[in-house]
Amino acid sequence: MKFTPALYCAFTFLLALARAALAENTEQWGVYEVALKGPGDGNPFLDVRLSATFTDGTHSHEVEGFYDGDGMYRVRFMPEAAGEWRYETTSNRWPLTGKTGTFSVTAASPKNHGPVRVHNTYHFAYADGTPFRQIGTTSYSWCHQSDALEEQTLKTLAGAPFNKIRMCVLPRDPPMSNPQRFPFAGTPPKQWDFAHFDPLFFQHLEKRVGQLRDLGIEADLILFHPYGKQWGFDTMDAATDDRYVRYVVARFAAFRNVWWSLANEYDFVRTKTEADWDRFFQIVQAGDPYAHLRSIHNGARFYNNAQPWVTHASIQNGAAVEEPGRAELYRDVWRKPVVYDEVKYEGNIESRWGRLTGQEMVDRFWAGTVAGTYVGHSECLKGEDVNMWLGGGGVLRGESPTRLAFLRQVLDDAPADGIEPIDKWQDSNMGGQPGVYYLLYFGQNAPKWWTFRLPKSGVTAGMKFKAEILDTWAMTVTPVEGEFATKKKDNYSFVDEKGRSIALPAKPALALRIRRVEGKKTGEEVPVE
Amino acid sequence: MKFTPALYCAFTFLLALARAALAENTEQWGVYEVALKGPGDGNPFLDVRLSATFTDGTHSHEVEGFYDGDGMYRVRFMPEAAGEWRYETTSNRWPLTGKTGTFSVTAASPKNHGPVRVHNTYHFAYADGTPFRQIGTTSYSWCHQSDALEEQTLKTLAGAPFNKIRMCVLPRDPPMSNPQRFPFAGTPPKQWDFAHFDPLFFQHLEKRVGQLRDLGIEADLILFHPYGKQWGFDTMDAATDDRYVRYVVARFAAFRNVWWSLANEYDFVRTKTEADWDRFFQIVQAGDPYAHLRSIHNGARFYNNAQPWVTHASIQNGAAVEEPGRAELYRDVWRKPVVYDEVKYEGNIESRWGRLTGQEMVDRFWAGTVAGTYVGHSECLKGEDVNMWLGGGGVLRGESPTRLAFLRQVLDDAPADGIEPIDKWQDSNMGGQPGVYYLLYFGQNAPKWWTFRLPKSGVTAGMKFKAEILDTWAMTVTPVEGEFATKKKDNYSFVDEKGRSIALPAKPALALRIRRVEGKKTGEEVPVE
Repeated sequence: MKFTPALYCAFTFLLALARAALAENTEQWGVYEVALKGPGDGNPFLDVRLSATFTDGTHSHEVEGFYDGDGMYRVRFMPEAAGEWRYETTSNRWPLTGKTGTFSVTAASPKNHGPVRVHNTYHFAYADGTPFRQIGTTSYSWCHQSDALEEQTLKTLAGAPFNKIRMCVLPRDPPMSNPQRFPFAGTPPKQWDFAHFDPLFFQHLEKRVGQLRDLGIEADLILFHPYGKQWGFDTMDAATDDRYVRYVVARFAAFRNVWWSLANEYDFVRTKTEADWDRFFQIVQAGDPYAHLRSIHNGARFYNNAQPWVTHASIQNGAAVEEPGRAELYRDVWRKPVVYDEVKYEGNIESRWGRLTGQEMVDRFWAGTVAGTYVGHSECLKGEDVNMWLGGGGVLRGESPTRLAFLRQVLDDAPADGIEPIDKWQDSNMGGQPGVYYLLYFGQNAPKWWTFRLPKSGVTAGMKFKAEILDTWAMTVTPVEGEFATKKKDNYSFVDEKGRSIALPAKPALALRIRRVEGKKTGEEVPVE
Repeated sequence: MKFTPALYCAFTFLLALARAALAENTEQWGVYEVALKGPGDGNPFLDVRLSATFTDGTHSHEVEGFYDGDGMYRVRFMPEAAGEWRYETTSNRWPLTGKTGTFSVTAASPKNHGPVRVHNTYHFAYADGTPFRQIGTTSYSWCHQSDALEEQTLKTLAGAPFNKIRMCVLPRDPPMSNPQRFPFAGTPPKQWDFAHFDPLFFQHLEKRVGQLRDLGIEADLILFHPYGKQWGFDTMDAATDDRYVRYVVARFAAFRNVWWSLANEYDFVRTKTEADWDRFFQIVQAGDPYAHLRSIHNGARFYNNAQPWVTHASIQNGAAVEEPGRAELYRDVWRKPVVYDEVKYEGNIESRWGRLTGQEMVDRFWAGTVAGTYVGHSECLKGEDVNMWLGGGGVLRGESPTRLAFLRQVLDDAPADGIEPIDKWQDSNMGGQPGVYYLLYFGQNAPKWWTFRLPKSGVTAGMKFKAEILDTWAMTVTPVEGEFATKKKDNYSFVDEKGRSIALPAKPALALRIRRVEGKKTGEEVPVE
């Protein structure tokens, strides 16, 4: 082969490509970022439009970019498949348009399961199929604190059972927020230049969202809230609102652990109408090529969660998870997952919504769980200063988190398709998968026994089950001796062929886990699930 | 005055007008009918379009007519105001078009309050403002029985507490229906000429609906249902479905006591899609100038009651009214009245949905009532034959109707704006109007006392209240001695200034009625409501 200048050129080009690929590799559901130097004149936040189309030949997405200050523009992309990808930019400015590149996407690393999706109508799973059993918490302003307090929060979360945290993008009024940065250029408390974002604010938030991701925690980003009267971010005009929403989506959508919560207590944001919320949803939907989960949290009034852009109901209700018969009712309305994100909090403050006992907090999780729904925690237990977990993060002082870790263990071992009500008009305290798995929760009753009886759905005569007694507060699992074999009782249910009951320790907060066992060919019996 | 031929003509004309007015008077919200002889050739059901515009100068309505057989066409109109009205017909046939007439509408007679409307978001009132407190029953096929049985049903209803009855237009399969007539020409069970209605069927139904009206009972007409496999009315094609809906609306909309129920267990009608139901709603809405109430009743799956054409939720749920904390939850979802039309029935049949005790049936009404919702009764108690109230009407054998009459008395005396949850996250068993009227229901608890305590909403210190103990089963009202004067207890509630409690007889099914009393100038005290 003759070494021609043309060949040399080609060789050098390929080498450069290979180097670029090495440098710019990311993994499936990781963040790939195109960073471009561009014009800094005028107001880039308003004047410059930038997007990029990413494709691997099979999938193709147009992704909005954003201005990150100092003349830097970025387009962030979350590839949904491993393989070779390429991109090409489009802009209304010559230096930013027509830029192309290629990069390799490797398989996801073991702890990366992708973004969370709705699964089986009422439940969640990661994109790779791994079930996601939501055990949520709320700490509205944990990212608007001193660095030391924020690091403390991350340390607490690393040892806590929560796999989702609800958090505000915009600062709240003090004392909940103690903001070190603000989303807009200008002077606090209210002299903002709404035409200029402050990239430092968002870079900080991104760092925290990335740290949550690395802890395996979903970040339910709350875009608006009614608690920032001091800063005035609830009285921006519609154009500013819309630009803010687009900017947040452009910056954060490539994080696989992001969920969009349009607002906290949306109806208490008195400056916006129902039509505004519809529009924000549509902006989020249009700007997020990955279709992250979208919800909106109510105060006294529900948004119409039947809207197609709502992926799941995010409910505040102080009474609905007091017992499973209430909790399950909203499922049928929207045929979407129901997350009771606010059910009052464990705490000792004077307000009724912040003084559940640890037992009550845990009880609500179990009631919601057997009803086929999901529940959220937070804590209003004050220490030496004014800070509480609900507002500023820091440490957890309550008694519920340890027990919620126990619940999470139980759920890790539950059917992948979720816990469904089994016979909700009769036995609302029983959830599971018919014929396979049952979880019964006795709440504040203190039963001495439970007569073995399963609703007929999925059950035939002669099936064998094993049972365990769960003490949801003491966090113990006690196997019940022997097996139960089913015998038809009536048109609705099956009982044990020997008519056996299960003796229970007559305490509150007991549960039963009943799982089917199958005879193997060897005669040995193993659980089906 | 000279008696000219022209004057004579005018005089004769005025006389004729006066005579016509006398003959054709109707009352406000009565039925005025334009009857016209027209062409009988071809198929009038398909070929002839007829409508009339009615106006009193202020209101104007275009009303669809219908063919009633034997060459007779009719347009029925329900005037919403007293005064002089006139009409003019339009048709695609010369003999029916351009007919005009005038008639007088007198004031409504004392028992005529007009059609029922939604009032105060979650409640109902007649058009004249009289509150309508729904105490419903269901007898699906009472109009598809022998005349003797139907007359028996009317006699029963005359002595029963129900002010609304759910009933099917189309026959069900036997034994529930024992149809003497069918809606279409042809031969039972399935050889129908769907292009020809049988007017006799509808004339019969109209007679019954009119008799219900005269008894003060609303007729919740169920247009479709899944229980007529033998007749095949659930497998008509879309054009026939639509024509049937239009025909029913044209015939019945002028009856002031008509409500439209699009279907019973709509989701069990496997031959129709969600889009079909949307379309039927729109046809009803377009064809009914009086906007009678519109709902659709679910089997296992809810229709989207947020749709603007749904006036109230018609719910089947066997567990939701077991306690008020459940019952109130659906109110917030749709912000419309919630009518639990099917909550299981008083009965003794084997199916679980038909074997509530009388106590359980009554308990569900009270639980729904204090939650700010409405409940429906029916009965599956068999006598000597197969007929039950639920299917064929006849007699009532159960223990609940007498107690529902007691509830109706209590409601007759309740605030006109309805019973609203007062503090639903804390005391879901208390409904009323803050500061004015409270109804507490203790369900299956058997309390020995109740410490006087009112949530703060609408209450200030020093207000005076009187209380009565209601035994909802024994149907007694026992006044509690003395008055209670309010004193602030904490940030959430007021108690009696002397810290008094009310002694209760420790039985199930107790309620308390608490009403504010005001000092009059004379010093005498009278109830506010």
